[in-house]
Amino acid sequence: MLKGIDPILNADVLYALRAMGHGDDLIIADTNFPSDSVARQTVLGEVLRIDRPVAEVMRAVLSVYPIDTFVDDAAARMEVVDEPDTILPVMEEVQAEVSRVEGPILLGIERYAFYDRAKQAYAVIQTGERRFYGCFALRKGVVPPDEG
Amino acid sequence: MLKGIDPILNADVLYALRAMGHGDDLIIADTNFPSDSVARQTVLGEVLRIDRPVAEVMRAVLSVYPIDTFVDDAAARMEVVDEPDTILPVMEEVQAEVSRVEGPILLGIERYAFYDRAKQAYAVIQTGERRFYGCFALRKGVVPPDEG
Repeated sequence: MLKGIDPILNADVLYALRAMGHGDDLIIADTNFPSDSVARQTVLGEVLRIDRPVAEVMRAVLSVYPIDTFVDDAAARMEVVDEPDTILPVMEEVQAEVSRVEGPILLGIERYAFYDRAKQAYAVIQTGERRFYGCFALRKGVVPPDEG
Repeated sequence: MLKGIDPILNADVLYALRAMGHGDDLIIADTNFPSDSVARQTVLGEVLRIDRPVAEVMRAVLSVYPIDTFVDDAAARMEVVDEPDTILPVMEEVQAEVSRVEGPILLGIERYAFYDRAKQAYAVIQTGERRFYGCFALRKGVVPPDEG
């Protein structure tokens, strides 16, 4: 436990979040996502785990992690297959956390395109989210000197 | 870089601080301390590095790390050889950081006894402190639920 840091951010996750730099990509996935196999292809090379609902994980991550503001695809969601515009409750919950820190509207990404993006990521956090399509991507932004 | 976390706390250091639990001991050492050889005997097994003055490192660590309040030796300094009561400026600077978070008066520990304690620690952070006797030990305390 550390003062002022959400306790669901475990040591492995904190390591990864701090080690990431501007433009590195983070995947936060539901329990059906192939997190282990995909994570082995990421920069970190091993899966991270936080066994909580995905919106709770998103809130904890965003308490320390800046979202990139240089690109249009910084925050993204995996689209429902054949229903790209459908917004499920799990997506609404995560959007609320992103909006809370003034992040953008989540960009929809087709399922296989999302897998391709995930393999290029820095790391994958597998959550305990049971609902389908609870899979999101977040590119890391910057912290300016005066916030240091 | 992470929001709200001192940037001198690098990924390896954040990992260690978060992984430590109640009663685990942290050594923060000057540049003459045998940090690498001692750290190989610690729980973590490898040395951590923050190349800054020791008081600055202490301030950053204490921004997230609670000091144990269950024991009398939670915060300690290596004594000057043959002058156990001498308080050098580097010790005063570190005491100011410990006092800022309402920590105790640093307990003096004889040099070889300090080495023995360091080998039992969870980890050693080697700082960039050039002054002699800039070596300190901090046992980790607890964060209560309401601060989580």
